[in-house]
Amino acid sequence: MTERCVLRISSALCLSAGLSAAKLLKANGLSPVVLEARDRVGGRTFTVRNKETKWVDLGGAYIGPTQNRILRLAKEYGIQTYKVNEQESLVHYVNGKSYPFRGSFPPMWNPIVLLDFNNLWRTMDEMGREIPREAPWRAPHAEEWDNMTMMELFEKICWTSTVRRFAKLFVNVNVTSEPHEVSALWFLWYVKQCGGTMRIFSTTNGGQERKFAGGSSQISECMARELGERVKLQSPVCRIDQSGDTVAVETLDKLTYTAKYVIVATPPALNLKMHFNPELPPLRNQLINRVPMGSVIKCMVYYKENFWRKKGYCGSMVIEEEGAPIGLTLDDTKPDGTVPCIMGFILARKCRKLLGLTKEERIVKIKTISNRIHVSTCVCQPVHYEEKNWCEEEYSGGCYTAYFPPGILTQFGKVLREPVGKLYFAGTETATEWSGYMEGAVQAGERAAREVLCAMNKIHQSQIWQTEPESMEVPARPFATSFWERNLPSVGGLFKLVGISTVLSVATAAGVVAYKKGLLSRS
Amino acid sequence: MTERCVLRISSALCLSAGLSAAKLLKANGLSPVVLEARDRVGGRTFTVRNKETKWVDLGGAYIGPTQNRILRLAKEYGIQTYKVNEQESLVHYVNGKSYPFRGSFPPMWNPIVLLDFNNLWRTMDEMGREIPREAPWRAPHAEEWDNMTMMELFEKICWTSTVRRFAKLFVNVNVTSEPHEVSALWFLWYVKQCGGTMRIFSTTNGGQERKFAGGSSQISECMARELGERVKLQSPVCRIDQSGDTVAVETLDKLTYTAKYVIVATPPALNLKMHFNPELPPLRNQLINRVPMGSVIKCMVYYKENFWRKKGYCGSMVIEEEGAPIGLTLDDTKPDGTVPCIMGFILARKCRKLLGLTKEERIVKIKTISNRIHVSTCVCQPVHYEEKNWCEEEYSGGCYTAYFPPGILTQFGKVLREPVGKLYFAGTETATEWSGYMEGAVQAGERAAREVLCAMNKIHQSQIWQTEPESMEVPARPFATSFWERNLPSVGGLFKLVGISTVLSVATAAGVVAYKKGLLSRS
Repeated sequence: MTERCVLRISSALCLSAGLSAAKLLKANGLSPVVLEARDRVGGRTFTVRNKETKWVDLGGAYIGPTQNRILRLAKEYGIQTYKVNEQESLVHYVNGKSYPFRGSFPPMWNPIVLLDFNNLWRTMDEMGREIPREAPWRAPHAEEWDNMTMMELFEKICWTSTVRRFAKLFVNVNVTSEPHEVSALWFLWYVKQCGGTMRIFSTTNGGQERKFAGGSSQISECMARELGERVKLQSPVCRIDQSGDTVAVETLDKLTYTAKYVIVATPPALNLKMHFNPELPPLRNQLINRVPMGSVIKCMVYYKENFWRKKGYCGSMVIEEEGAPIGLTLDDTKPDGTVPCIMGFILARKCRKLLGLTKEERIVKIKTISNRIHVSTCVCQPVHYEEKNWCEEEYSGGCYTAYFPPGILTQFGKVLREPVGKLYFAGTETATEWSGYMEGAVQAGERAAREVLCAMNKIHQSQIWQTEPESMEVPARPFATSFWERNLPSVGGLFKLVGISTVLSVATAAGVVAYKKGLLSRS
Repeated sequence: MTERCVLRISSALCLSAGLSAAKLLKANGLSPVVLEARDRVGGRTFTVRNKETKWVDLGGAYIGPTQNRILRLAKEYGIQTYKVNEQESLVHYVNGKSYPFRGSFPPMWNPIVLLDFNNLWRTMDEMGREIPREAPWRAPHAEEWDNMTMMELFEKICWTSTVRRFAKLFVNVNVTSEPHEVSALWFLWYVKQCGGTMRIFSTTNGGQERKFAGGSSQISECMARELGERVKLQSPVCRIDQSGDTVAVETLDKLTYTAKYVIVATPPALNLKMHFNPELPPLRNQLINRVPMGSVIKCMVYYKENFWRKKGYCGSMVIEEEGAPIGLTLDDTKPDGTVPCIMGFILARKCRKLLGLTKEERIVKIKTISNRIHVSTCVCQPVHYEEKNWCEEEYSGGCYTAYFPPGILTQFGKVLREPVGKLYFAGTETATEWSGYMEGAVQAGERAAREVLCAMNKIHQSQIWQTEPESMEVPARPFATSFWERNLPSVGGLFKLVGISTVLSVATAAGVVAYKKGLLSRS
């Protein structure tokens, strides 16, 4: 029997965790096998080809600067990236009106709101700086921040309802869950390990800067092709037995694979799909019950023409309206300008509300809001619609990623990637840079593969974690903050300033009056 | 092929959900099969027999008035109940000192703390009254309460740190999780459906009034004996296929059972152990990722003598000290006075902290605090120790029950017991009275069985939910509240009262002075 490393990617954590682990192991002379639950590779990336769309990414699609590992893989396979269109104005739709803007965040005009908005981003980034990306549970205020939800934190930070509402959308868009559902420590960590509030939310210079021409699943497909027969589709794992010298891994179709080591590359919660012998250690046994996947439906609406660009809009919309299904849109037209399309996300609470509707009912709701944002004309009528509800996927559990409810990260986080006997854990949730993204999946897969190599004495422990050189094609620019952004007071700070100066003025005035009236003696 | 109803109790939700469903179906002429994941029946009840203890309940053990279904089953099998000793004083250990007391809750002596304490219970019970037990998501303030954690609610209700600290212990003891982890709506519902703060927490007249002589697993064992060959042990289910006319249920040992209907009687999260065809509906697919099981180690310390009773203590202790492993103890001596024993729970955060220790290290920690509470004498030295860490159980996931983190009950609660094709859902988590307890398991199992009977047109829909006559042997007495408990102000209310009367007094005084100085004209 040959030396085998069974890499499971039952519900491959985004495309790449299991496959990139296998690729690295194969390159090191081992003989990995990849067991994939679905009848396709790619996991939470899912490129569909048809005549209406040419190709469409129904799952993970966006990449950007600082995501150097996934960019390296793409380059290796000759897969090109292209920029998501952001040449014209973005639109902020709020209180029933569209406001065109440029830049990462919509501008705020009310001076109090402006201070509040500026303070929100600054505070989140400052708090993030205190959180170690590889061990958020060791942050100086870890317990305090983990025991509150992000909604509680917003209630402490934000003075205005305008900013609080936008902050809610910021959570919805980034982690497909609600501020009251997620731990503040976890969310601050998540934003930090993506490079901060600007990097995570921006198109240009941020996480949504680019897409892969031809679709993101190509990377998994190329890796799978390279691995050939080693990738077994439709092989959901239902049992992992470590009681013998080797690990026995059994699939639902009753095949048993034996291996020296196993890398489990599913979202943590999907470890539950397997029956373990011996049982998982207690903390891991409970962790996997505590990290749910977010809720999102990805929608693509196709039009005859790129009408928004003619009106001066790039297609990016940030939509704050409870009745609107979509929270964020981006232009999804092909790089050559063909197949005009707007992509939008139905997020968190709205996703759960609308997933009971039929596809037809959803498209009607999307058209209604779209017509209200752009003045409706005949060119605005959709010619085609694609959507993917990730909540229904048994082998993902949801998208984009797992979130940590309050109290879980500090109590269970440390076992997230702690090996269990001969089991190692990959999957984007175990990453420390761009966890939740394709980049995180590659980081995690390669790290887990090197853990196995280290266990086999093929590399030194110090080689397990490796930094990645920056992509030449997609370099990162820093996000400069202005003097004012750094130094403007918060609303609370302003009130204190005003308060103090008012007290001083009143006191001075009172002193003068008192002096004039002879009430103060000069003794 | 005979008409079969496969009742799964892979990880039987407390003893009785799967078995009591099967029992009822068999009584109605059907031929159910029970597939049990473990090598024993009983699930979260687990009676062990050995010479040191005679018998000991390592899992669910307590029953009390209003738990009429489990009492009816016990009576049918001739299993006696006995009262947990509460004849002598209870002990409240706080700030390093023991305070003996009588009644359900420790008394508070500081008048401000007393008002605060009284207001806490009153407020929780009043809020509970607004929550429909069968549909907590329909409570008038469901969304507001679900979007906050119980810790947030305590911060709003409680004025004193003494009461806030006790409130935390109250959550720990009742649901083996932390106030910052659970939704306020869910916890208020949980307490309500157990009959309120007094019923859930009390020994006498409450949820801990009694135990079963010989151990709680006997009920499952009797039901299993009655069902005979129909109960298949060591048969964890890994696949449920509803794509054909009948349901195919496959176990890990590769046996396939076919059935017209299936009752899934696991905690919701353990649905994840099975692979479904077709996939579960999206809301259920996500729900089962969102309802973790609590964390508890149940500890039994055996002594040569009942030394606590000689000192005037009944053995019940409510322990508020961060360094103490145990939060609550009860006398676990046998009803005939033999095998002197104190039972204690290591709860929530403390459980996660201490589960990494060895059994020996834990017993040392327990001895230390025990010696501090009782002045140590030679009779205080334990002669035997039993414990069970429920976090390590793959087929329970934790104990006592599932909790709902913030935001989940309103968004996903309604699918908790909604049938999926020919699948019906039992398990104590789906109950509406004493959910989380053995009683809830029986209610859920029998209700699910009647849902199947209804689907087969054997009973009418109106017969699915049935009330249970009160046990003659264990009648419930109401918890009377005194005039003062109902009408004393909260601390906030007191301050308002004092504030208003102060303002009035000051205003009156000022008026008199002004009048006397002629500053007020009489015009």
